[in-house]
Amino acid sequence: MQAEVIAVGTEILLGQVADTNSAYIARRLADAGIEVYYHSLVGDNATRLAALVNQARSRSDLVVISGGLGPTKDDLTKQTVAHLLGVKLVEDSAAMAKITAFFATTGRQMTPNNRLQALYLAGSRPLKNETGMAVGSFYRAPSGADVVLLPGPPSEMRPMMAHQAMPLIRAAYQRDEYLTSRVLRFFGIGESQLVTQLSDLIDHQTNPTIAPYAKRYEVTLRLTAKTTTAAAATQLLNQLEATIRERVGAYLYGYGDENSLASVVVHELIDRQLTITGAESLTAGEFQSTIGSVPGVSAVFPGGFVTYANRAKHTLLGIPQEIIDHDGVVSEATAQQMAERSRQLLDTDLALSFTGVAGPDSLEGHPAGTVWLGLAQRGQAPQAKLLHLTGNRADIRMRSVMAGLDWVRRTLDAGQK
Amino acid sequence: MQAEVIAVGTEILLGQVADTNSAYIARRLADAGIEVYYHSLVGDNATRLAALVNQARSRSDLVVISGGLGPTKDDLTKQTVAHLLGVKLVEDSAAMAKITAFFATTGRQMTPNNRLQALYLAGSRPLKNETGMAVGSFYRAPSGADVVLLPGPPSEMRPMMAHQAMPLIRAAYQRDEYLTSRVLRFFGIGESQLVTQLSDLIDHQTNPTIAPYAKRYEVTLRLTAKTTTAAAATQLLNQLEATIRERVGAYLYGYGDENSLASVVVHELIDRQLTITGAESLTAGEFQSTIGSVPGVSAVFPGGFVTYANRAKHTLLGIPQEIIDHDGVVSEATAQQMAERSRQLLDTDLALSFTGVAGPDSLEGHPAGTVWLGLAQRGQAPQAKLLHLTGNRADIRMRSVMAGLDWVRRTLDAGQK
Repeated sequence: MQAEVIAVGTEILLGQVADTNSAYIARRLADAGIEVYYHSLVGDNATRLAALVNQARSRSDLVVISGGLGPTKDDLTKQTVAHLLGVKLVEDSAAMAKITAFFATTGRQMTPNNRLQALYLAGSRPLKNETGMAVGSFYRAPSGADVVLLPGPPSEMRPMMAHQAMPLIRAAYQRDEYLTSRVLRFFGIGESQLVTQLSDLIDHQTNPTIAPYAKRYEVTLRLTAKTTTAAAATQLLNQLEATIRERVGAYLYGYGDENSLASVVVHELIDRQLTITGAESLTAGEFQSTIGSVPGVSAVFPGGFVTYANRAKHTLLGIPQEIIDHDGVVSEATAQQMAERSRQLLDTDLALSFTGVAGPDSLEGHPAGTVWLGLAQRGQAPQAKLLHLTGNRADIRMRSVMAGLDWVRRTLDAGQK
Repeated sequence: MQAEVIAVGTEILLGQVADTNSAYIARRLADAGIEVYYHSLVGDNATRLAALVNQARSRSDLVVISGGLGPTKDDLTKQTVAHLLGVKLVEDSAAMAKITAFFATTGRQMTPNNRLQALYLAGSRPLKNETGMAVGSFYRAPSGADVVLLPGPPSEMRPMMAHQAMPLIRAAYQRDEYLTSRVLRFFGIGESQLVTQLSDLIDHQTNPTIAPYAKRYEVTLRLTAKTTTAAAATQLLNQLEATIRERVGAYLYGYGDENSLASVVVHELIDRQLTITGAESLTAGEFQSTIGSVPGVSAVFPGGFVTYANRAKHTLLGIPQEIIDHDGVVSEATAQQMAERSRQLLDTDLALSFTGVAGPDSLEGHPAGTVWLGLAQRGQAPQAKLLHLTGNRADIRMRSVMAGLDWVRRTLDAGQK
């Protein structure tokens, strides 16, 4: 069983947009034990796309194509593949209903080309688009390789691949041995340090395999076991995870590809019925927005403060001007006061504060990346810690937020023991 | 002149790492007016790599390959390509001296496989590696396509491509005509509607070309002119832009690949010396964090409020409980009060407010996507507008922020006229 992956789009070919779809598709196929031997990328050009699909079908069993299902003239994938396979395009009534409803709801005018988005390959299984309008296809060919068509925007492609295509692919190409993956998520340790501490495990990996991956602000390890039963996979993965935890367990905060430190922290707060607020200077709302992205956060988060300018710290939080004048705004005392005052004003159990230098310029003589975090807890004196962060403005703001979330996570964990 | 790009590496094929090299290489080639028709990706497998390089050389004039130049067993690119071209590998003395020096400096033992990194294709120009050890190659074939070999790590590949390979490529394939691009950015109009309104221009495009692209919350048009002088390119692009502005100019907010609506709005506020704040419910700080990402925003943004829970709206902003009880929290009156109260508390010229339903659950009987925006201006009665947004929780929050920014932009533009 061999698969290959094709991405379609001139903007990707020209390098204006990086192709992240092919990597995602390859990972999902690997989860099902399906090996991918080639990725290819072609522009919005019917002749070259047809040649590429023909070649792919001649050397693989399954060809997964993303891009070119939209309503514009340069979206040619469906038409080209239908012609190649000798099948018609037919309209999916559910997709058409969704398109009609979208234009009715938003009051925008529906142009005729939007109907194209509801078409799929005759004889295939249409794949529902949960987050957009263009329908996909899973076509089992009477002879030659099967074809999956997915939309190009990652926000539409990913749920369609994971929820619609993968169950059909798993069912179609069932195998005796299959792969089971577990993703461990780490914060506060670099990839090279993690790999060094696990070097003997990584050097001698066979089953399960261990794949480290450095994300923007964290590191993940993907453990993959090849077994014939789920129970055997669980046992292998549990053993390996236990060994890893002995060495670097302090940095391990959660599991899964779709997880995040914010989600883990919010769910711990909900479980313990502890409320939280924040007072943000350099992060300007990024901490609150990050926890606000987690559904259900309203149970523990009433709101908070963005105190970007010094006068906002004084006006909104009542931080005495003497503290700002004497200690500076990037200081332990200011961070403690911001956390404690915001906690008191909204009467929460916890509060985080962020004050520092996002850059590019320095502030009060501190270079960009100098950040004080404050943590207030009901019934305790507020604490503060100093960070020296690297990266650009966006990195420093996001690393501050992640460090704050990790501090809350470690505080909650320590409180539990 | 046609080029194609090949990336080599099993970790990319499996999707553990996304391929960003091919996009970078394609952009640099496009800068020199060289068109790229295909990208392909293959694992660390000599047979499949050889087949792919053969195919690429049969249909293109230049093949640029990244990856597989390192010292480990799975680095096969150099050996495979040398065999294919019928040339030997020879040692670059400068590269070898750098490798020897590295091991001398770090005190590590140099294993024999490290010598491999100094080898390049006989008869080619070796390409210096500024940031690593593996040397590259630019091979001009006596017959058939030329080949460029680059290292896989982006930190080594990028400087080698930009500083070493590109001058040789430009000199080798000098062209009279070159491409100049201009990117126009639109908000508030869908891709299909934009394309429909410009369909005659798009259908008959020759020079400049017009490429629409739907980003997550906006649409861009890339206009590309092929000319012999910069002045001629500017003239062609100005003419086309003027025609586009006549039809959809109201949605055009800025230029450039790296621009954003937030950046445009913040810079307009700075230019006009107008200050802004915000009071956010469903967006939970996302508006403030978004404008906070723009360097220099401190001149116009003192801070603001995240009033996620009703009690925060009351405690922090003093919104009368009767308004919330009578009109509801997702209402015109609440949006107006949130904007005006936050503006007064921080004494700013403008304030935006956001109250609505991010989902997934409904609120007060309103479905997810129901959002009231409020806009307060000094000396004027506050306004509010109702949005019906689609998408998931993250989409609804971000679309709310974008709609608010666009409202401010249009208000500033209208005020100027």
